[in-house]
Amino acid sequence: MPHRKLRGGMVGGGPGAFIGPVHRMAAELDGEAAIVAGAFSRDPERSRQAGSQLFLDPSRVYGDYHEMAERESQMPAGQRLDFVVIATPNATHAAVAAAFLQHGFHLVCEKPLAVSLDEAKALERDVRNAGRLLMLSHAYTGYPMVKQARHVVAAGELGTVFKVIVEYHQGALPYRLHNPAAQQKAWKSDPAQVGRSLAMADIGIHAENLARYVTGLEIEELCAETASVMVGHGLEDDGSVLVRYRGGARGLFSISQVCTGEHNGLSLRVYGDRRSLTWRHETPDLLLIRDRDRFDTTVHKGGPSLCAEAIAAGRLPLGHPDGMTAGFANLYRQFYAAIRDREENPRSDRTFDFPTVHDGVLGMAFVETVLQSAQSSAKWTAMAR
Amino acid sequence: MPHRKLRGGMVGGGPGAFIGPVHRMAAELDGEAAIVAGAFSRDPERSRQAGSQLFLDPSRVYGDYHEMAERESQMPAGQRLDFVVIATPNATHAAVAAAFLQHGFHLVCEKPLAVSLDEAKALERDVRNAGRLLMLSHAYTGYPMVKQARHVVAAGELGTVFKVIVEYHQGALPYRLHNPAAQQKAWKSDPAQVGRSLAMADIGIHAENLARYVTGLEIEELCAETASVMVGHGLEDDGSVLVRYRGGARGLFSISQVCTGEHNGLSLRVYGDRRSLTWRHETPDLLLIRDRDRFDTTVHKGGPSLCAEAIAAGRLPLGHPDGMTAGFANLYRQFYAAIRDREENPRSDRTFDFPTVHDGVLGMAFVETVLQSAQSSAKWTAMAR
Amino acid sequence: MPHRKLRGGMVGGGPGAFIGPVHRMAAELDGEAAIVAGAFSRDPERSRQAGSQLFLDPSRVYGDYHEMAERESQMPAGQRLDFVVIATPNATHAAVAAAFLQHGFHLVCEKPLAVSLDEAKALERDVRNAGRLLMLSHAYTGYPMVKQARHVVAAGELGTVFKVIVEYHQGALPYRLHNPAAQQKAWKSDPAQVGRSLAMADIGIHAENLARYVTGLEIEELCAETASVMVGHGLEDDGSVLVRYRGGARGLFSISQVCTGEHNGLSLRVYGDRRSLTWRHETPDLLLIRDRDRFDTTVHKGGPSLCAEAIAAGRLPLGHPDGMTAGFANLYRQFYAAIRDREENPRSDRTFDFPTVHDGVLGMAFVETVLQSAQSSAKWTAMAR
Amino acid sequence: MPHRKLRGGMVGGGPGAFIGPVHRMAAELDGEAAIVAGAFSRDPERSRQAGSQLFLDPSRVYGDYHEMAERESQMPAGQRLDFVVIATPNATHAAVAAAFLQHGFHLVCEKPLAVSLDEAKALERDVRNAGRLLMLSHAYTGYPMVKQARHVVAAGELGTVFKVIVEYHQGALPYRLHNPAAQQKAWKSDPAQVGRSLAMADIGIHAENLARYVTGLEIEELCAETASVMVGHGLEDDGSVLVRYRGGARGLFSISQVCTGEHNGLSLRVYGDRRSLTWRHETPDLLLIRDRDRFDTTVHKGGPSLCAEAIAAGRLPLGHPDGMTAGFANLYRQFYAAIRDREENPRSDRTFDFPTVHDGVLGMAFVETVLQSAQSSAKWTAMAR
Repeated sequence: MPHRKLRGGMVGGGPGAFIGPVHRMAAELDGEAAIVAGAFSRDPERSRQAGSQLFLDPSRVYGDYHEMAERESQMPAGQRLDFVVIATPNATHAAVAAAFLQHGFHLVCEKPLAVSLDEAKALERDVRNAGRLLMLSHAYTGYPMVKQARHVVAAGELGTVFKVIVEYHQGALPYRLHNPAAQQKAWKSDPAQVGRSLAMADIGIHAENLARYVTGLEIEELCAETASVMVGHGLEDDGSVLVRYRGGARGLFSISQVCTGEHNGLSLRVYGDRRSLTWRHETPDLLLIRDRDRFDTTVHKGGPSLCAEAIAAGRLPLGHPDGMTAGFANLYRQFYAAIRDREENPRSDRTFDFPTVHDGVLGMAFVETVLQSAQSSAKWTAMAR
Repeated sequence: MPHRKLRGGMVGGGPGAFIGPVHRMAAELDGEAAIVAGAFSRDPERSRQAGSQLFLDPSRVYGDYHEMAERESQMPAGQRLDFVVIATPNATHAAVAAAFLQHGFHLVCEKPLAVSLDEAKALERDVRNAGRLLMLSHAYTGYPMVKQARHVVAAGELGTVFKVIVEYHQGALPYRLHNPAAQQKAWKSDPAQVGRSLAMADIGIHAENLARYVTGLEIEELCAETASVMVGHGLEDDGSVLVRYRGGARGLFSISQVCTGEHNGLSLRVYGDRRSLTWRHETPDLLLIRDRDRFDTTVHKGGPSLCAEAIAAGRLPLGHPDGMTAGFANLYRQFYAAIRDREENPRSDRTFDFPTVHDGVLGMAFVETVLQSAQSSAKWTAMAR
Repeated sequence: MPHRKLRGGMVGGGPGAFIGPVHRMAAELDGEAAIVAGAFSRDPERSRQAGSQLFLDPSRVYGDYHEMAERESQMPAGQRLDFVVIATPNATHAAVAAAFLQHGFHLVCEKPLAVSLDEAKALERDVRNAGRLLMLSHAYTGYPMVKQARHVVAAGELGTVFKVIVEYHQGALPYRLHNPAAQQKAWKSDPAQVGRSLAMADIGIHAENLARYVTGLEIEELCAETASVMVGHGLEDDGSVLVRYRGGARGLFSISQVCTGEHNGLSLRVYGDRRSLTWRHETPDLLLIRDRDRFDTTVHKGGPSLCAEAIAAGRLPLGHPDGMTAGFANLYRQFYAAIRDREENPRSDRTFDFPTVHDGVLGMAFVETVLQSAQSSAKWTAMAR
Repeated sequence: MPHRKLRGGMVGGGPGAFIGPVHRMAAELDGEAAIVAGAFSRDPERSRQAGSQLFLDPSRVYGDYHEMAERESQMPAGQRLDFVVIATPNATHAAVAAAFLQHGFHLVCEKPLAVSLDEAKALERDVRNAGRLLMLSHAYTGYPMVKQARHVVAAGELGTVFKVIVEYHQGALPYRLHNPAAQQKAWKSDPAQVGRSLAMADIGIHAENLARYVTGLEIEELCAETASVMVGHGLEDDGSVLVRYRGGARGLFSISQVCTGEHNGLSLRVYGDRRSLTWRHETPDLLLIRDRDRFDTTVHKGGPSLCAEAIAAGRLPLGHPDGMTAGFANLYRQFYAAIRDREENPRSDRTFDFPTVHDGVLGMAFVETVLQSAQSSAKWTAMAR
């Protein structure tokens, strides 16, 4: 392994942003990399402020990502960025990615990958052509007990999986609409910045990704109902999706950003003919396994007898919550391993355990298929490709 | 109020039955009535055994419900039954009901009311023509905190309700299919005895009834997917239903009897624009109220500041679980009040808080509409009438 | 088994009482017995009212328990009471018991058995001399999962037990002192009616009995601190007790009736060197078993693979809560079996699974030892005998 | 605020250590400081390895803390360490601290501060004389909802506090003694390295610190029972402590490292005459507030209407767990603010919200008083000074 601390840059994530700082904490948590450059805001002064708070060299703080891509691409080897984190509003992901890809930087991209399936597919082609890595931030898959859940399914412990239920219920919108002071994320309901979908593109794809990560099942067709309960602008903030998986299993997705009083209610239940599993994000360190014979077992992060991936994904011992940033950092850790692997062996085709640009394409396919089915009055609709 | 202990008879519920004994316990819990006669089994010896275990007068224990109806109708006033409890397999409910209605007995009927919507509607007409009472045993609506939930909605505390999620997930079938010794309820998967539907008719109607009881919302149309995962016989054991309520609210029903490892997982969530509520049968004495402003309150059975109906429906004080039989007994208590009211004033049209034959009609309409939508490839289907 | 419904009488439990009606519901739940006589209040009119609500024969409703004992003792065999339930304030238990014992009735006595150890021991002698049965109402031991807990310990599944933690935390007192309308149980803080102890005699003995029932451990000596936080009258409403069990295990009891906001927070934890168990009254149908190797199992009432006693003690299937009355009824069921056994064979020495007068003696010994240790500044004090 | 990234060094925390890496993650989480030097192990090769994994300048990685103190004290201003983290076994804390204090470094010290009260008091004098800061790592006080709990008490929302219950139950020891492969922390049961106390010094002081942090109450006297259930070596691994606080409130501490099956079960309950609060480390983002009037409220990390300290201590929004490292980082954040404050104004006496050397002295006083009381047969013993 090339023995040096990796260097990252960031686009977006300036003052007031939620996800930018989380990326920085996750990226740096294990001491394997440091964010050393950034265009944190289109407002140069705000970008400068953000850079200053991170004690960055002011000469590497930009007000424009084009300038950043240009200038950073000319850095000498010992200072050159290894990767760039894109934490801007959805509609700009593709353009920012393109700017850095053309200079050969690896990328971390905030989800959703793009604002349409076509855009996502184009970006996937660009990434492949550039021979670069792109990690998509489906952070929930970084939790140790999600990895354990995946292991349990893959090892056949559930028997044949026939049903998957995923819920992602948030209540921020009712809160914000009622508390004007809290409306910091206006761009999130602006179709020009998020695309044609609100809830599905924002959190539905997390549900889709989580279910796929754990079960490996592929959606064949789906039947959806969506609604715009509160947000307006022609954007859906609520939806239910019936799913038929390839192979015969069925799924049920309940996705909503108007679930008054909910926090960040993501949960996954997978039913097999021998056992079922339940994972809830509100108690992320637990995995409930329920046996056909009515014996419930709770497996804990940090405990013995977990799979190797779940053990490696934990930092603190049993009974000490690692939290979401650590889960996110697990994605980065795999991404760094991939970067180092590529650096050692540019032709390597080893795969690593982080969400890729292809996950982003599948996520956008899910979003578009849901919208299409809902618009055609809940017609069963084959998954878009 | 006519001051005497009421007298009940029972059809079905003999040795090995689950629900018959629960009816008896619930019917007698408050000391307001006693079961004094019965045709507990079509096997006269088994019926006699059951009667003997209840210390009944052997002359009032029958092996045939026709004989029971005939003989009991000739009892003098001071011994005459006030009501008859029907706890037989689904397919016989209508015939048993008819036999007793023609002699003017009030009825308690185990759910589902019938095996088809037509049969249910015919029974509703008979009940109305006979001028008798029929209580349907949707026991979950008897829980104090379900009554509190209903009050919270009716009082507008949730604001405008826009979404209802009901789950009813059981895991008995995977257990039984794997443990031959446990298969005591074979009739439950015999279409000749249960009708065309398994899960929807057995538990889906509980979900439908619970949601309607709490919210008062009426289903306008629905879109369903069902499956026969394990049970075969052309019966569905799993289904998901998207619902559009009159007035614009939406619903999501997840109904399954093949949820490996689940017990009796009934839950209800109602989302309004100000607050939401959650009630789970696994912790029936709690009602979770979540505020738009992210303040969670848990309200407890037996606590102060509940509505009058929730207080009246509790027997033990705060922190002492009443259990399901007590909830069931609350239905009986209302039923007895209705009987006494009718006895005092035969023309009374007072309503009481128990599920009626009309709830049974609506339940069967739900079942048939779900099957119809599922068979037409999840087409939105107007609620059958 | 003599095949007839048993007949019970009740002293106390009139209008407004909490525990009297629970005794009646529990005593009659399984249809094995009926309450047919009573002196429900010292106020004859209130007693009459209570009897009337139960539809009793007015000639068997009394305003005085002496009269009741006298008159009922003269009833012919076919009407004679089999047992009498004593549900009066603590200070009267011994006298009421004596009145009925002298006429040879079996007894059910509300806890605590007496107001002093000496009184309890005298009553034990009387019961033994009369050759009658006395069941003490430690209802918590009737729960199926408490029986399962006892089984788990006895079967050695925990390994060697070295520590027991029991909490019994109630919050009714802070509520009542602040809500004058709620003070219906004034006698509970009147030393003339409850004796020298409030919290220990009211709920501490439940904790002592539960721990002993499950573990079989005997207290050798204890060290206690008590306080009168709110109730005054020289009565303790809060206390902590360090315990040394015979054989070397240790215990910790936390008993309080001033735990603001608590409901009826009884819990038991037993630690062995292989496994531990946790039972909480707020979720009485669950038993948590935690393994040395960090594997948690939750065992459920009504599930397969429970011990015979836990299965027999359940009435409703998995996922359907039986509630506290049903647990209480399990005590009565065993008591009735004992009565029938004695009737068949007066010399029988079979034991049955219900708390006896000797449990009452041990409970009072616990109370007095706690008070003595607390008064001697938390000195280790040998269990009183 | 002097605008530069702070520089830290670390002693201990090499390969295989648990707490060293947590210190590093916490110290660096907010990007305000970096660990740039260390003596990670007494074995120079292991120290070098640890430094290499952190990509440190090899010239600043040492095999001996004396050498480190000497060499680092000679660094020029722009490279000089601002603080040193001591993450070595207990018995060495005082000596390591002394070595760095004499060169004027601020300190972070892993708990317990020392192995005796005398040693702790001597260290407190040294810190005061040196005019340096020492932060003690009682990380649990860094959790947002612990800060909210403190606020709730200070704001009088509980009314008068009269009772405090703290539990700290771990089950690692039964696991390790049974799984030889897991015994990595042998030094933890070696009196030469941990001092005279095991459980009290390791986790009892966390309980003491947490209770004091939240309530502000000072222990006046205590009465304790301890046991050596499994560990031997004359060290206690289990203990219960009755506490009398100055002002009349009472406390109960249950501390054990042999609670089979438990993970890291720290919990705090505080009872006032108006409300009570419960915080459990297993669900650190929740604070349960229970009202005298039986109304339960759950307050969540990241939610609105928290106190300023709880808001500032959260990094991720509502429903996204921050985890323990983030709580720990809150201590570091306050420590850095103190360092910067001192740098700006060396005479500043502003206080900051992190545990200090004085907390360490009080912790050791607690440990010694507990041992003394237990040895004198649970005699009430005044808190050592």
